[in-house]
Amino acid sequence: MADNDDLRAQNLAFYQAFEAKDLDAMASVWGEESPVSCVHPGWDPIVGRDAVLESWEAIFLGTRAISFTLRNAHLVVSGDAAWIILVEEIDAAHEDGERVRAATLATNVFLRETTGWRLVHHHAGPAVSVPTARPSDRALN
Amino acid sequence: MADNDDLRAQNLAFYQAFEAKDLDAMASVWGEESPVSCVHPGWDPIVGRDAVLESWEAIFLGTRAISFTLRNAHLVVSGDAAWIILVEEIDAAHEDGERVRAATLATNVFLRETTGWRLVHHHAGPAVSVPTARPSDRALN
Repeated sequence: MADNDDLRAQNLAFYQAFEAKDLDAMASVWGEESPVSCVHPGWDPIVGRDAVLESWEAIFLGTRAISFTLRNAHLVVSGDAAWIILVEEIDAAHEDGERVRAATLATNVFLRETTGWRLVHHHAGPAVSVPTARPSDRALN
Repeated sequence: MADNDDLRAQNLAFYQAFEAKDLDAMASVWGEESPVSCVHPGWDPIVGRDAVLESWEAIFLGTRAISFTLRNAHLVVSGDAAWIILVEEIDAAHEDGERVRAATLATNVFLRETTGWRLVHHHAGPAVSVPTARPSDRALN
């Protein structure tokens, strides 16, 4: 199950690059041999490696700090393609001072390239009514 | 560009099966050689062909009528994998009498199987703040 380990590691590298606001690390996660695309919550879809990396640069510039708690990850592997579905619990501070705590449901699609598994599509959307009780929800009652 | 035509046709077949509430047609759209998964808006992710088809059966039973207007489709093809990102404008009547008009942003992932392109992952989420003005929005002002 080396593929599974590699995919989980690459998926984690994506969120670590996001938390570190490290554009080089983010660039190394994304596909270079395959076309790539990205859906940020509330944005129009972005297609193409340059445009996707520019979107990350803009997000990093607007983000003072961000951390993720990842939950309920489902990994599906099919030959040289794979995808992970997971809940992203986000705790972020924007540069304009806004504090955002939110949950998004994401699909991360990976393809096997010469150098290994690379992210080729990220789709994150609001997890509006995903029925996932959290301990912290109970603490508020 | 035969692949592009085939992919657009298979993507359309998915929505036509949904509108017709035709479980056999829906089953023929989804992958049989690859594992499959599905994210319905507000549901927990579903993994596995049987579970995915059961979810469609449940949705069809709860839906009196549904129609889709598809907008802003982006098709990305990478070898034997492909995905389409698009906005689904939904006009639905549930069996409980509720009328739902909503827009969702979806990613449909396809893999090439022996019989052609098959849907292997559908992720639809609320298009909460996607900036896509519709003529009908203006008509309300």
